[in-house]
Amino acid sequence: MTTSISTRIHNFAAGPAVLPVSVLEQIQRDLLALPGVGMSILEISHRSKTFEAILAKADADIRALAGIPPNYKVLFLQGGASTQFSMVPMNILAPGATADYIDSGSWAEKAAKEAKKVGNVSIVASTKGDNYARIPRQSELKLTRGAAYVHMTSNNTIEGTEFKELPEVGDAPLVNDTSSDMFSRPIDIAKHALVYAGAQKNMGPAGVTIVIIREDLLQRSQKTLPTMLNYAVHAENNSLYNTPPVFSIYAVGLVMQWLRDQGGLAAIARVNERKAAALYAEIDRTGFYRGTAQKDSRSLMNVTFRLATEELESKFVKEATAAGLDGLKGHRAVGGMRASIYNAFPEAGVGALVSFMQEFERKNG
Amino acid sequence: MTTSISTRIHNFAAGPAVLPVSVLEQIQRDLLALPGVGMSILEISHRSKTFEAILAKADADIRALAGIPPNYKVLFLQGGASTQFSMVPMNILAPGATADYIDSGSWAEKAAKEAKKVGNVSIVASTKGDNYARIPRQSELKLTRGAAYVHMTSNNTIEGTEFKELPEVGDAPLVNDTSSDMFSRPIDIAKHALVYAGAQKNMGPAGVTIVIIREDLLQRSQKTLPTMLNYAVHAENNSLYNTPPVFSIYAVGLVMQWLRDQGGLAAIARVNERKAAALYAEIDRTGFYRGTAQKDSRSLMNVTFRLATEELESKFVKEATAAGLDGLKGHRAVGGMRASIYNAFPEAGVGALVSFMQEFERKNG
Repeated sequence: MTTSISTRIHNFAAGPAVLPVSVLEQIQRDLLALPGVGMSILEISHRSKTFEAILAKADADIRALAGIPPNYKVLFLQGGASTQFSMVPMNILAPGATADYIDSGSWAEKAAKEAKKVGNVSIVASTKGDNYARIPRQSELKLTRGAAYVHMTSNNTIEGTEFKELPEVGDAPLVNDTSSDMFSRPIDIAKHALVYAGAQKNMGPAGVTIVIIREDLLQRSQKTLPTMLNYAVHAENNSLYNTPPVFSIYAVGLVMQWLRDQGGLAAIARVNERKAAALYAEIDRTGFYRGTAQKDSRSLMNVTFRLATEELESKFVKEATAAGLDGLKGHRAVGGMRASIYNAFPEAGVGALVSFMQEFERKNG
Repeated sequence: MTTSISTRIHNFAAGPAVLPVSVLEQIQRDLLALPGVGMSILEISHRSKTFEAILAKADADIRALAGIPPNYKVLFLQGGASTQFSMVPMNILAPGATADYIDSGSWAEKAAKEAKKVGNVSIVASTKGDNYARIPRQSELKLTRGAAYVHMTSNNTIEGTEFKELPEVGDAPLVNDTSSDMFSRPIDIAKHALVYAGAQKNMGPAGVTIVIIREDLLQRSQKTLPTMLNYAVHAENNSLYNTPPVFSIYAVGLVMQWLRDQGGLAAIARVNERKAAALYAEIDRTGFYRGTAQKDSRSLMNVTFRLATEELESKFVKEATAAGLDGLKGHRAVGGMRASIYNAFPEAGVGALVSFMQEFERKNG
């Protein structure tokens, strides 16, 4: 006997996060043996034709969804964005060169901190003084001439802010940590040199990291690097230098197919805009709730808001959880509430939260 | 509708490898929603109480199975043993010190190669001249006085050899890559300083690496290391510095529970000895098959053998595959055949292979 969809609740967690039910159902159906293969996806060799086909389809679907130009490689790695914080400078920040970092939030700050262990880093703008409540403006960026690259974080999961457009960085390669908004909207890969994302928000379960890298950057990877941290090695070996996270890649592939079935990135972006608009409208309606991000920087993925007191916030989270609205507690670093509404989060769940918010205000306002 | 057990074949792959059917069935049953949680294991936050309990139970079961002393930490990392090839020297090989490596096979050689990028390495014994057909003898080890550590590879997956007992290394910390025989037999953790293994052979699906490290070694990890490669950071954060591979850890936990249900490591070792003995007996019966490992070095996990010609070997693999005996082709580096018979590989599958071998010899002998 298998668990049914009726037992599921609304999961507003910031990641790992909700997945499409149809994807979960397919994983469940084929768990004991992939059709025609006679083995579970959890047991098949990464050198098998079955997995080669799974990997190739995931790669092709990612390319199709984002319109990735042919001179970019898609890599499936491990270790999360946190490992990329080190791999990026270890591979593409040459000794003596400087890497520019845009400090738009807690994760951006962590990325810069790791890069400083490797080489010269310049923080070209920071909104830390504003509690990261907004995205730095183009006019604030003090870019380094001849920078090895410019690093940005497109969506700031903890603070609930998001770049509305890519910064202009001239000739410098743009490196973008898109962990929390990858494939939630169209992305112009050609304006980037390197894009990376942990899968566990919009793309699949935890355990795999997607890296999209322009091929000319691969020449920067030195042979003295630890092999597993060398982008060029992973690119040459088509992400099969060693045993990859087979199951996570399979699941990402199913989510990519689901995304294509939804109509692709432009279509899912419309849904995401609708979901976020409904929540922000409720936040702005009376002043009982207070959005923490400045309006022009508001994230479509992580909607952060507060109440008048921490006591009221605790009550809100507790009663929401009891009502089947789970994961609304804000990150421990900032407090308050956070509703993460990634691609697979259903519109009905947003409706349920809005209703709950109205009812909570009526009782406590 | 879900796939049934009747569609499954015998999977002799070297890893990722076969898992216990009861574990697969439990994963399948709870895939849409963990009982009482309302979310899939693929969706739950790694900071949730549910996952904390899963992690704590996996840790406790690993400790109980191996009798791990309290002054050791169990870490759940990513990147496979190949990442450990770098993490070990980066963390515990100080500048100026020397690490001793026992070169018993292709993976041991790779481990030493990565360590050489980090510091001084001495190959204290090698059986490469014998095509790695045997384990180096104690008398052959030219250990370095005051070595930072001695690195060994307990089972050589490609060549089908296995240490029957741990080498004597004096006061030097013993580091053991047990990727392909971890928990297939009792292990004396107290004789080691560090044990590591990719999970995908005896412990679970690909995507998580188990590291068991003696606490005093954690003092060697320098703060200048990339954070994600720092053992001390992972130990301090209880493997939750960043998002861990939630699903793979869950699956490893279920396999550990299964292993306890089988009676633990001594009990599974008896089964593994029986399975290997049946296969080696057939290999030795007439001379039609030829074992490639020397008899005193034969692995209980990977049984490697050859036939008179490569043509006959191709025929063997092809007909075996058609008969539902999959994954018998040897590693591309050495050729021949390899039957990997890890913990979860059923005795009935060994019986099926022995019958097939006898029939194949009757027709082609």
